[in-house]
Amino acid sequence: MSNVKSDLQGVLAANDAFYRAFATFDKEAMEDVWSSSEQVTCIHPGWTLVQGYDDVLASWARILKNPNQPPIVSGGAQVQQYGDCAVVLCRESVAGGLLYATNVFTKESGLWRLVHHQSAPVAIS
Amino acid sequence: MSNVKSDLQGVLAANDAFYRAFATFDKEAMEDVWSSSEQVTCIHPGWTLVQGYDDVLASWARILKNPNQPPIVSGGAQVQQYGDCAVVLCRESVAGGLLYATNVFTKESGLWRLVHHQSAPVAIS
Repeated sequence: MSNVKSDLQGVLAANDAFYRAFATFDKEAMEDVWSSSEQVTCIHPGWTLVQGYDDVLASWARILKNPNQPPIVSGGAQVQQYGDCAVVLCRESVAGGLLYATNVFTKESGLWRLVHHQSAPVAIS
Repeated sequence: MSNVKSDLQGVLAANDAFYRAFATFDKEAMEDVWSSSEQVTCIHPGWTLVQGYDDVLASWARILKNPNQPPIVSGGAQVQQYGDCAVVLCRESVAGGLLYATNVFTKESGLWRLVHHQSAPVAIS
């Protein structure tokens, strides 16, 4: 059980690191969060699919250096773990709007790395 | 390798079954697609998070019996498998609009079952 608990904490820590990199506009930290695999994928709100480490990180670089990008606050993270794969769902608050994200992590050499992110606006209920 | 190939075909078949149930407004088929776990989750376009088998399937029942629900066509599915977890990304076309979906499946007693779905509109590029 302690390993399971530790794994979930590791996933949540990786999810926190992702949003910390986003909130602090830290490009290098964002690069560390993602798996370096060519299979990584990202669907930003309203964008189409971005695929592969270089293109995904280039999309983040554009977001993080955009002076008009509002800060992000994340909350309500919940984790489902399936072996070395974990799915985190969480809220994102950006400029007064509410979004929901699906973040998929895999365990690589003992560290949880982001392999997929989709975020989209949702109704405030 | 044949097992891996067979697994990917099984995931794609499960993803096809999901969209076939949606396209044919088949509530019973939709119920079969999902894992019966209380951990299943769904983020419909613009909705907030729906959680648990009963609530998720109730949300689908409302969609499938809605006479104004336009038909859906899905395409471009790609799979990433991580052990007994697989993530499918695919396009959805509804009433001339393009959406992108993240569908997460897990293998239960040899069958791939849907445990999470998020879909949201994207730009047409």
